[in-house]
Amino acid sequence: MRNIDELIPNFETYLKSEIMQIANRSPIGLYQPVADALTFGGKRIRPALLLHSASLFSDNTDPFLPAAMAIEIFHNFTLLHDDIMDNADIRRGKPAIHKLYGQNSAILSGDAMSIMAYQYLAGCRSTHFNELVALFSKTAVEVCEGQQHDMEFETRNDVTIDEYIEMIRLKTAVLIAASLKIGAILANAKPSEAQLLYDFGIYTGLAFQLQDDWLDTFGDEATFGKKIGGDILENKKTYLMLKARALSSKSSSAELDRWLSASLYDPDEKIAAVTAIFSESGAGEATRQQMNHYHDKAVETLSKLEICTENKAGLTAFAGKVLSRKA
Amino acid sequence: MRNIDELIPNFETYLKSEIMQIANRSPIGLYQPVADALTFGGKRIRPALLLHSASLFSDNTDPFLPAAMAIEIFHNFTLLHDDIMDNADIRRGKPAIHKLYGQNSAILSGDAMSIMAYQYLAGCRSTHFNELVALFSKTAVEVCEGQQHDMEFETRNDVTIDEYIEMIRLKTAVLIAASLKIGAILANAKPSEAQLLYDFGIYTGLAFQLQDDWLDTFGDEATFGKKIGGDILENKKTYLMLKARALSSKSSSAELDRWLSASLYDPDEKIAAVTAIFSESGAGEATRQQMNHYHDKAVETLSKLEICTENKAGLTAFAGKVLSRKA
Repeated sequence: MRNIDELIPNFETYLKSEIMQIANRSPIGLYQPVADALTFGGKRIRPALLLHSASLFSDNTDPFLPAAMAIEIFHNFTLLHDDIMDNADIRRGKPAIHKLYGQNSAILSGDAMSIMAYQYLAGCRSTHFNELVALFSKTAVEVCEGQQHDMEFETRNDVTIDEYIEMIRLKTAVLIAASLKIGAILANAKPSEAQLLYDFGIYTGLAFQLQDDWLDTFGDEATFGKKIGGDILENKKTYLMLKARALSSKSSSAELDRWLSASLYDPDEKIAAVTAIFSESGAGEATRQQMNHYHDKAVETLSKLEICTENKAGLTAFAGKVLSRKA
Repeated sequence: MRNIDELIPNFETYLKSEIMQIANRSPIGLYQPVADALTFGGKRIRPALLLHSASLFSDNTDPFLPAAMAIEIFHNFTLLHDDIMDNADIRRGKPAIHKLYGQNSAILSGDAMSIMAYQYLAGCRSTHFNELVALFSKTAVEVCEGQQHDMEFETRNDVTIDEYIEMIRLKTAVLIAASLKIGAILANAKPSEAQLLYDFGIYTGLAFQLQDDWLDTFGDEATFGKKIGGDILENKKTYLMLKARALSSKSSSAELDRWLSASLYDPDEKIAAVTAIFSESGAGEATRQQMNHYHDKAVETLSKLEICTENKAGLTAFAGKVLSRKA
């Protein structure tokens, strides 16, 4: 298995059949939002990583499809509840679930999804079930912690770069890392190997999120798929913003503050001005450097893995793609 | 062990120490609401039933305290999210968590509680862990289904009595039943015995909820602890209401409809008038009969349990107390 995308069609087939079953369950008011949240999609990166990781140690990954589903349903549960908390109306170009079905249904269907994730995890009938539940639960709680930090950062003006990195580690990286580790555990990898894959996932996840931040300002709108400058308009304390504050000259810093506290402004003008500060201060470049640093750590971690180089190619390519992706 | 309350002090000591640990976790914004939700209390019936059930088959129930905690934290998670969905400001005489911390924190802290329940369940290190996770997850999903039915009933005028019983089975009875069964499984009871305890829990849980409905109209305000007639003012489709519709004369039924659709009225007058219809139609008496029916089924189920009568005394007393309780 060379490419992490290769197992996605397999997963999509399984997912589609599960979605059909879920959509037929009663009460429909509880399960249709679950089916919709899963249908509307995304890139299925986490289940792909889980299956790919398993494929490094086992020829047949089909028995692990339920665990891939557990990760995907949990991930979509967090998006569903996050959209309520962030008051986000649109998800992947479609109305958010709470817009389609109302807030109460979105809360309750999300709650059910979080439990269903454990049911899918149990569906693998693994001899490592205790370890899997412990890892999955620890990860799930960490994702909640990350979301809490993210919400708290909105009203704080003293967020440090270390705090930001810890927030994205919790909110984004641990689930990517756990996907890889769960795949390895299911396929009976040695604990040290499973842990290396976890560490690889953390570094790649951090790079992934930094790239997300970077694309939100410097990406191409047509390719990125959402409006460029959204984070700037929301005054989000991204790596770019925190680094710009740290690196800016006094006058640029004052200008940044004016834009952050302005209540009346032309959105395009604000995006252009803040983007210019991000560039001129060197924050854009510093973000790319930090991404490269995580990429290097990821590759270094991979080099310690005791599998043949050929088998590492998929993950090496994935780590590289995280940096070069445009969407 | 005679009385199901006897193990509560033991549980309270354990709970208190866990709450202290939880309250010290970071981020505090995530964990303080969890600690508060657990502190504000309730009667701890479910953990008491779990430990009592375990005590029927094992002398030392201390190793099962984490499972009792799992049930209690899950129960309080459902109350926390239900209060958001029902827009309820008060819980056990105190401001609801979403009133204290805001809706977003209440959603997220609830999410964390649901996952923490699995962590506590895992804390028992039982050889029956797979079975426990399956039972717990099935139960948890059913509770969500029950809440969904309950929300849908609000806007439906054709709810049948069978549908109502199924709703309270899911929303209330299955968690009581699962508490008993989990205790039995943990203490290595035979599967048939664990199942009888589950069935006992279902019947007792149904009686418990019907008594709740009955007390909301016919209880004593000082003893009941909340305002009598709340369900009537909310036009809730309780067993009393559905039975009153089924049993009322044409003129009483028309009067009931007038009260249900009235937008301007004196609350005390509405409570008095609807209570009178509940009494005169025989709905109050029919509710008590149905409760007695479930009580009889619970006792009958208990009689099949292969443990000595002395050891059944606690559960027999509990089933009786459900019918006679005033609060």
